[in-house]
Amino acid sequence: VVDITHEIPPQDVELGRLTVARYWRRFPSGTVHLAIVDPGVGSERAGIAIASDGRFLVGPDNGLLSPALLLPDARAVQLHVARTASATFHGRDVFAPAAIRLLADAQLEDLGSAASTPIIRRTPEARRGAQGELIGEVISVDRFGNAITNLLGRRATAVVAGSQELPLCRTYSDLPAGGAGALVGSTGLIEIVVRDGRASDVLSLARGDTVRLVDGPVRTPSR
Amino acid sequence: VVDITHEIPPQDVELGRLTVARYWRRFPSGTVHLAIVDPGVGSERAGIAIASDGRFLVGPDNGLLSPALLLPDARAVQLHVARTASATFHGRDVFAPAAIRLLADAQLEDLGSAASTPIIRRTPEARRGAQGELIGEVISVDRFGNAITNLLGRRATAVVAGSQELPLCRTYSDLPAGGAGALVGSTGLIEIVVRDGRASDVLSLARGDTVRLVDGPVRTPSR
Amino acid sequence: VVDITHEIPPQDVELGRLTVARYWRRFPSGTVHLAIVDPGVGSERAGIAIASDGRFLVGPDNGLLSPALLLPDARAVQLHVARTASATFHGRDVFAPAAIRLLADAQLEDLGSAASTPIIRRTPEARRGAQGELIGEVISVDRFGNAITNLLGRRATAVVAGSQELPLCRTYSDLPAGGAGALVGSTGLIEIVVRDGRASDVLSLARGDTVRLVDGPVRTPSR
Repeated sequence: VVDITHEIPPQDVELGRLTVARYWRRFPSGTVHLAIVDPGVGSERAGIAIASDGRFLVGPDNGLLSPALLLPDARAVQLHVARTASATFHGRDVFAPAAIRLLADAQLEDLGSAASTPIIRRTPEARRGAQGELIGEVISVDRFGNAITNLLGRRATAVVAGSQELPLCRTYSDLPAGGAGALVGSTGLIEIVVRDGRASDVLSLARGDTVRLVDGPVRTPSR
Repeated sequence: VVDITHEIPPQDVELGRLTVARYWRRFPSGTVHLAIVDPGVGSERAGIAIASDGRFLVGPDNGLLSPALLLPDARAVQLHVARTASATFHGRDVFAPAAIRLLADAQLEDLGSAASTPIIRRTPEARRGAQGELIGEVISVDRFGNAITNLLGRRATAVVAGSQELPLCRTYSDLPAGGAGALVGSTGLIEIVVRDGRASDVLSLARGDTVRLVDGPVRTPSR
Repeated sequence: VVDITHEIPPQDVELGRLTVARYWRRFPSGTVHLAIVDPGVGSERAGIAIASDGRFLVGPDNGLLSPALLLPDARAVQLHVARTASATFHGRDVFAPAAIRLLADAQLEDLGSAASTPIIRRTPEARRGAQGELIGEVISVDRFGNAITNLLGRRATAVVAGSQELPLCRTYSDLPAGGAGALVGSTGLIEIVVRDGRASDVLSLARGDTVRLVDGPVRTPSR
């Protein structure tokens, strides 16, 4: 049993999904991932098990497991819920037992009937503004207070968040202590950070806040 | 090594005990549980090891391990404390070594002398009020902010906490976003919850607060 | 995989170092410790792997692993950083892979070239004041709110922090509920504690605060 994290804030399906995206294929073929962020437990939302790229994933059908559903060979089944299952704790009564059965060599199809349209959530795409600039948003705040955006842009020079222009640097140590900036994080997305601090607190950033990419380095000279 | 949780708040023996109750028998025969919430470390409180229903439990004798002591076949020994043990860190110096010895096939009786009266704490019982209504209390708040009560009552219609009457529903998704209610949690006890929120914050609930069950659905007609 | 802790606050290399000191030799020969508290990720700071007393340690060269470097037989190498490694996530891209290679029986020297002067940080030493009294400081606050000092002193009678004189006792249970005191913690250092409370909050203590040891019990009579 490897505990990837128990630090996803309650109900934060989006950060859970980004975490699944980051890790699910880094574990070897045959791995069974059990991932649960489940504000809809007990509702009509289904539970699913997925086989994708040789790995298995088990959890609620609420978009959390989307990264594994995007591959062409992905298969998913809708889990059967025993009548004895608690209405509020499917982690214990539905998902963990399904994961165990997969580890005990059950076939995916033994766990339920084919799920033809599992829910897929994607990172929202950045859009172009009136001047052609790239406009995105904060999609998550991690436990270090880094604000992860949906912006890609290795050739940009800065990111604007609120009224602040933050230089795009390569790593934390390019910033002075306490200084704010932006950098390309481990997922390839631009993150807004404060060296030795919490960007979300220092800059009052939260999910959904608009951010804007400042292109560079070529500008038309003003003469 | 399976880390059930490191999220019991410091000194919260009661939530630790509820967690032991929830999990100790869900692990297979032969499992050794090491459970430590130990505000009395270094005092005269004893350490104990228990054999019960084929499982073993090791920890402080402060009621934390009560669920395993309630079975008729339970046996307990009082752990010997080596003179070299730190006065403040029995987890490292007393309990973990005892757990390891059990895993290495020591007999329970090798670890100490019989403990004839280990401390047993029970969930306080709800009582009947003047109108025959069931009056209980909040016995714990979990990490989601759910307020766990000592009320059982699947046929009730609502729970009153402070000045609020909260409908008893089956699951979170029966509530509107941000709405407060009560439901039967995974332990069979009624919990007061807020959908996508923290009931303890929204309703200012803390351990010891009085709660009252509203019976239903049969009421004596007023004619 | 044993998760010693994920509760070191971000950037707190000092508490990380104390935690390494507490545990690295308690695991058996052949253990590979992966320890990462890494505010300088992506800077010129090196990554290192250490062989010491039969154990291996992998992490940033920022003093975190100092306890293992202090032994005379310690050897260290500077880890090679692949060009494909993320600039911000060496835990995933540099340190974990090096730890895996050691577990797969690589030799330390296979991982990089000898590191001749790895960074060593030590607990700051207490000093003597004008009256010969021992003056130290709070070097860390743990998750229970205990303020760990750099004072040794089993024969002292009290510790002064700010305007308060705190009696030196043997264990928490020597204090009244909510009472403040000092005791020798599991590392041998004096800690300032509050029974069933958080000393750091109750006494407003933070890292770097000055503390002073009150000698005892022999005093020169004033005649």
